[in-house]
Amino acid sequence: MTDERLARAGLSRLTEPGDLRVARAVAQVGAIQLYDDILAHRDRDQLVADAAGRMVRLDPAAELERAERSGIRFVIPGDAEWPTQLDDLAHGEPVSELGGVPVGLWARGPLELDRLADSVAVVGSRSSTTYGEQVARDIGAGVARADRCLVSGAAFGIDQAAHRGALALDGPSVAVLACGVDRPYPAGHRSLIEHMATVGAVVSELPPGCAPLRIRFLARNRLIVALTCGTVVVEAATRSGALNSAGWAESLSRPLMGVPGPVTSAQSQGVHQWIRSGAAALVTGVDDVLELVGSAGEHVRDVPRAPVQPRDRLARRHRQVLEAVPVRQPAGLASIAATAGIALVDAQTALTYLTEHDFVVQGPAGWRLGPRAQADLPA
Amino acid sequence: MTDERLARAGLSRLTEPGDLRVARAVAQVGAIQLYDDILAHRDRDQLVADAAGRMVRLDPAAELERAERSGIRFVIPGDAEWPTQLDDLAHGEPVSELGGVPVGLWARGPLELDRLADSVAVVGSRSSTTYGEQVARDIGAGVARADRCLVSGAAFGIDQAAHRGALALDGPSVAVLACGVDRPYPAGHRSLIEHMATVGAVVSELPPGCAPLRIRFLARNRLIVALTCGTVVVEAATRSGALNSAGWAESLSRPLMGVPGPVTSAQSQGVHQWIRSGAAALVTGVDDVLELVGSAGEHVRDVPRAPVQPRDRLARRHRQVLEAVPVRQPAGLASIAATAGIALVDAQTALTYLTEHDFVVQGPAGWRLGPRAQADLPA
Repeated sequence: MTDERLARAGLSRLTEPGDLRVARAVAQVGAIQLYDDILAHRDRDQLVADAAGRMVRLDPAAELERAERSGIRFVIPGDAEWPTQLDDLAHGEPVSELGGVPVGLWARGPLELDRLADSVAVVGSRSSTTYGEQVARDIGAGVARADRCLVSGAAFGIDQAAHRGALALDGPSVAVLACGVDRPYPAGHRSLIEHMATVGAVVSELPPGCAPLRIRFLARNRLIVALTCGTVVVEAATRSGALNSAGWAESLSRPLMGVPGPVTSAQSQGVHQWIRSGAAALVTGVDDVLELVGSAGEHVRDVPRAPVQPRDRLARRHRQVLEAVPVRQPAGLASIAATAGIALVDAQTALTYLTEHDFVVQGPAGWRLGPRAQADLPA
Repeated sequence: MTDERLARAGLSRLTEPGDLRVARAVAQVGAIQLYDDILAHRDRDQLVADAAGRMVRLDPAAELERAERSGIRFVIPGDAEWPTQLDDLAHGEPVSELGGVPVGLWARGPLELDRLADSVAVVGSRSSTTYGEQVARDIGAGVARADRCLVSGAAFGIDQAAHRGALALDGPSVAVLACGVDRPYPAGHRSLIEHMATVGAVVSELPPGCAPLRIRFLARNRLIVALTCGTVVVEAATRSGALNSAGWAESLSRPLMGVPGPVTSAQSQGVHQWIRSGAAALVTGVDDVLELVGSAGEHVRDVPRAPVQPRDRLARRHRQVLEAVPVRQPAGLASIAATAGIALVDAQTALTYLTEHDFVVQGPAGWRLGPRAQADLPA
């Protein structure tokens, strides 16, 4: 047990996640000095006064041992598994008066947190639609298929659908909680969260036992954005916890992506606003996502292209003649040339070409459309 | 009957819409000179050769009289009702080898074409979904409500839904056809098109009697974009005639707008691609549309905002204390201060404030949540 780890575990217990005063003091004087100062009642920024009520039964050494017995580890900066991308939080602008690098992360599960460097977050509304859940599940599965970790918040709705999509493919899925990692929240997701603790990881800034206070969700959202290399919002109404993620994505220069939905759905309203304002990029599936989060050159997406119809390959003047050929009743050369507005000799040349390539059929009474040209006439 | 009108009616009959050679020659030597040259077989750019087949029964004077008897007028540049925004086509880049200012517009219906200056186009897939049609109808109605003309192509699917939306509010609706205005196409929309000819207008570059050749739809799409001050694409698969409109919108610097839909719908794929690439702006309804096409200051849209919940207005430290107050079992000051991570004295001040404002209720055993704070707890 190093002093550093002990001090950070103490600070984790004494202060709230995202408290800028803590992050700044740790950066200035170090965790050990800050912790000693608080214990010695040498106040800075009223931190001692605020922490006073939590000092009564403070015993980080015992807490770390108890955690270890329960399979919970406390990961701090400098550890091999520390996700160094979190250090970006030292420079990002605060959002909702929160910010800063966490003093440490409490974690359960076999997945080491440095694996999260190329992870993708999929988050969204708790009151999701069937559509949103389907899309979240598909993207979660796609992230797993791309051999990346899927990170979300284990909430009802979009979060759980994304987790399940990744888990269904045996992909590593990581839940970042706004409460202690020993305290599955929401309770209805106990088995989902336990499963992730078995095959992936469950992570929190908060020490074991802490309750999921609403204000902690805001700090948690910052962690999800900071841990991953891109955050996809699948559904979000205009009043949505996910809205807060947009601020973090901007603050940390991480790509924020939004999945559109029916404009008639309130659940997509928030996402549409972001895409409209340029805060989020529109993505329609995991291919779009991987293109946006991938390193340059990686995951170059196949833009869905229309199948090229044979007639699309024709020269414009050949098409003009083809358009002038009737579907059923054959027409003569002069009539076709006049309809096309093309010189007789050119119409003749074009008809020869079109006949050779089965676009038109020549009979005794003239030309009519051939089999290759019949498809896809305008209704 | 001026020579100019006669010459242009002749050219309209002899050449295909969007033929760049025609537009350029008219700009260089004038319609009368070009028409005379063609009649005298003085060729330029092979125009005479191409027009030869159509010269046989050419009689624009008789054609204009016949049109007038059928309630069809031929509007040319210089006429009071000429929609001068079409002149932008002289400078726009060609798309699919087409372009140029039309030599004239054949029109039926009481609506004068100069009314189209602030009109809005709503177009989209012929094979639309119920969702797309509902949105097109709503936007069509919204355009009419804003006292603007609704322009579309009278096709099945999105086009007809947009027309009907405007017509349902007795708004002026204009159909731009890829065939003669006396020849309703598609045939299934005969009564819809006749209705627009009675209350709005039916417009085409093509003289009466002309057939809707496929290639003419591309030239027609350029007219729709050029006539209006913005084009909304409601649904478009990746292979869609509407795709062509994107090129015109860019060429003419007219706003192109796209309505998103479910990413699981092929009908929205084309629109999503455009929004993603930046070719189209995302719009979710007519308010967005009017904001994008309106003059500066006009139609400033109310951004849908989340209703502000009372607790959102609280100072952060007050919220922190509020979060620490239990829902049912009351808690004491020390416990609340410790949970919140706030100094005792500050917690006391906050609780007093929160009690006064009904966020919390104080009883003999401590504080619990009050009625104003109960709403909207995370699931």
